[in-house]
Amino acid sequence: MLVEVRKENPLIHCMTNVVVTNFTANGLLALGASPVMAYAKEEVADLASVAGALLLNIGTLSKEQIDQMIVAGQAANRAGVPVVLDPVGAGATAFRTESSQRILDQVNISVLRGNAGEIASLVGVEAKVKGVDGNMEGDKLALAKRAAKQFQCVCVVTGEVDVVTDGISAHSIHNGHAWMTKVVGTGCLLGGVIAAFIAVTPNDCLGATTSAVTYYGIAGERAYEKTSGLGIGAFQQAFLNELQLVTDQQIEQLKKTETL
Amino acid sequence: MLVEVRKENPLIHCMTNVVVTNFTANGLLALGASPVMAYAKEEVADLASVAGALLLNIGTLSKEQIDQMIVAGQAANRAGVPVVLDPVGAGATAFRTESSQRILDQVNISVLRGNAGEIASLVGVEAKVKGVDGNMEGDKLALAKRAAKQFQCVCVVTGEVDVVTDGISAHSIHNGHAWMTKVVGTGCLLGGVIAAFIAVTPNDCLGATTSAVTYYGIAGERAYEKTSGLGIGAFQQAFLNELQLVTDQQIEQLKKTETL
Amino acid sequence: MLVEVRKENPLIHCMTNVVVTNFTANGLLALGASPVMAYAKEEVADLASVAGALLLNIGTLSKEQIDQMIVAGQAANRAGVPVVLDPVGAGATAFRTESSQRILDQVNISVLRGNAGEIASLVGVEAKVKGVDGNMEGDKLALAKRAAKQFQCVCVVTGEVDVVTDGISAHSIHNGHAWMTKVVGTGCLLGGVIAAFIAVTPNDCLGATTSAVTYYGIAGERAYEKTSGLGIGAFQQAFLNELQLVTDQQIEQLKKTETL
Repeated sequence: MLVEVRKENPLIHCMTNVVVTNFTANGLLALGASPVMAYAKEEVADLASVAGALLLNIGTLSKEQIDQMIVAGQAANRAGVPVVLDPVGAGATAFRTESSQRILDQVNISVLRGNAGEIASLVGVEAKVKGVDGNMEGDKLALAKRAAKQFQCVCVVTGEVDVVTDGISAHSIHNGHAWMTKVVGTGCLLGGVIAAFIAVTPNDCLGATTSAVTYYGIAGERAYEKTSGLGIGAFQQAFLNELQLVTDQQIEQLKKTETL
Repeated sequence: MLVEVRKENPLIHCMTNVVVTNFTANGLLALGASPVMAYAKEEVADLASVAGALLLNIGTLSKEQIDQMIVAGQAANRAGVPVVLDPVGAGATAFRTESSQRILDQVNISVLRGNAGEIASLVGVEAKVKGVDGNMEGDKLALAKRAAKQFQCVCVVTGEVDVVTDGISAHSIHNGHAWMTKVVGTGCLLGGVIAAFIAVTPNDCLGATTSAVTYYGIAGERAYEKTSGLGIGAFQQAFLNELQLVTDQQIEQLKKTETL
Repeated sequence: MLVEVRKENPLIHCMTNVVVTNFTANGLLALGASPVMAYAKEEVADLASVAGALLLNIGTLSKEQIDQMIVAGQAANRAGVPVVLDPVGAGATAFRTESSQRILDQVNISVLRGNAGEIASLVGVEAKVKGVDGNMEGDKLALAKRAAKQFQCVCVVTGEVDVVTDGISAHSIHNGHAWMTKVVGTGCLLGGVIAAFIAVTPNDCLGATTSAVTYYGIAGERAYEKTSGLGIGAFQQAFLNELQLVTDQQIEQLKKTETL
């Protein structure tokens, strides 16, 4: 599926947070997609409606930015452009939970990506979230399925094991490396990568998302292997390299996925 | 000319987009200039008027930011400080085209830098632009000369070959490497590098801009040679290295420029 | 002390500038802290009051952002959460000096970090500041003590030699490397690192700050040694590596501190 992304270079309209915007753009370029970052209410509808997919990430949200995301999301919906939502830090503050809910109420989301704490807060399950990297105990699959059904989308719950489901079928992905959590924005960039995969396979959102998450985890594993012992700066650079270098053949060999 | 930039460390006031602000600052530091990023209406006139040059880049524009750029640009004009404009994505949305026009109407620009699609949209030539990396067919030199005359500035149209002209004399630069387009912000940083060169040679804007573009392309070539096969993360790091390491002597040896 | 930071992973709420936000987050992750960036008035009090420390950095300030920093700072004060202020560019524009003063008037600061020019402008000493990297002649220790007493905090004046004082006791730190000034945001990240150290040692703010500055300088020295001759891109990556790799034992061996 990677080969299609690299061939089509889908335009991904990213409305993401100021911490990860450069990393997201460089990661999408490394993958082979064409990122465009735009936030102004005067233009987001124009861009979202011609993009291959739209990424909404609330990492450094303001009320105004959420308003702009809704304008963009509704334009994407009208144009049939898939929308990925990353509700960063939902559960950590009431403002984040409510803002995520506001987007979910007003925009049709194709894929919702979060860690267990974030997703739990959106479906109303009790979960303690620390900062934006929250995790939780409990049944991740049940949580993902509940969110997928409630919001009528594909839901990805990331963590040591990632779960992807449309509410009926589900896959777990055991690829990835713990050091990915030590580079800021790896979760946020994954949202962009998912957007790029669904842009070229809009009719198989579950499959595209599973492929995106698998590819991403394999890139992280390879980056760690190539820089073991050097440190997190070297890993970060190698991860960008691998996003560019990983092939569909390598994914076939290295993937550790299960149908649940 | 590089030696003058490194000796004088010109202060470059950058009003640029959130995607590339870190890369722009690090690139200018690698070159030997002193970047300062400031956006608030309360202070931009103070900074622009004492800077060596001012960079205006509309990559993630809002109406308010354009207003602030105009305040800064007019203060720079009053103080005799040269201004570089990078109309990122002009042509991709009406808001970008109109905002660029608004700056051009109200600020005297020394150098206008864009790809062919962006420049075409500003002079009113038909061009299809995809995202912010648009390119177009046609006569790049005629386009650059037309823009230079219309806006009474030096115009740089970048692409596989770069063209620099003041409307009368013109140079083409055949340096650079295709991987530069795979790192976000290389176009944006070039605007800052041009600003640094014209800051130390304000009386030869055409020559300074040509030198800046040539230096920049050579840094990209050398970065690719030193990291061939490693991937885009390695290239990005090597490019910063080369911005620091390239010398005037190397530029003399490696430059591929033509007077048109 | 490093071992405590890495064990406790303190949550550091960063309200910092758009140029360095990614670098600050990655640097804190490399150290072993948990950064969270949040700016909206609707949530900053929630986050600041549960954080281990709050960092306020005015590098790309707006009036609104300063208002939000004051909301966060006062919430931190009520909750007993220490606050670090980095008055980037104070003295370079009246707006920066006044905004810093406004924060100092309304928030109790635990640590104030700046270069000599910035600190001088806040205590009312004459100093010429160029851009945001200003330096000055004169008695750095007297300046730091005066600021510490005036603002009832620990004051760090950074430069070739760093001085840390609570107004009575004082230490100088001779670690660090000149290339640290060639990477944008090293000063800003230091504010975050100090925040992480005081988060785990709130009762010894002077000691924690001195340890943080020493650790940071040693990371810079080691990064330079490991990449000598390669260039500033390589140094930047190695610096992130060293922030992760440096140990308390190495600090004991390599520290060059004096009690003044």
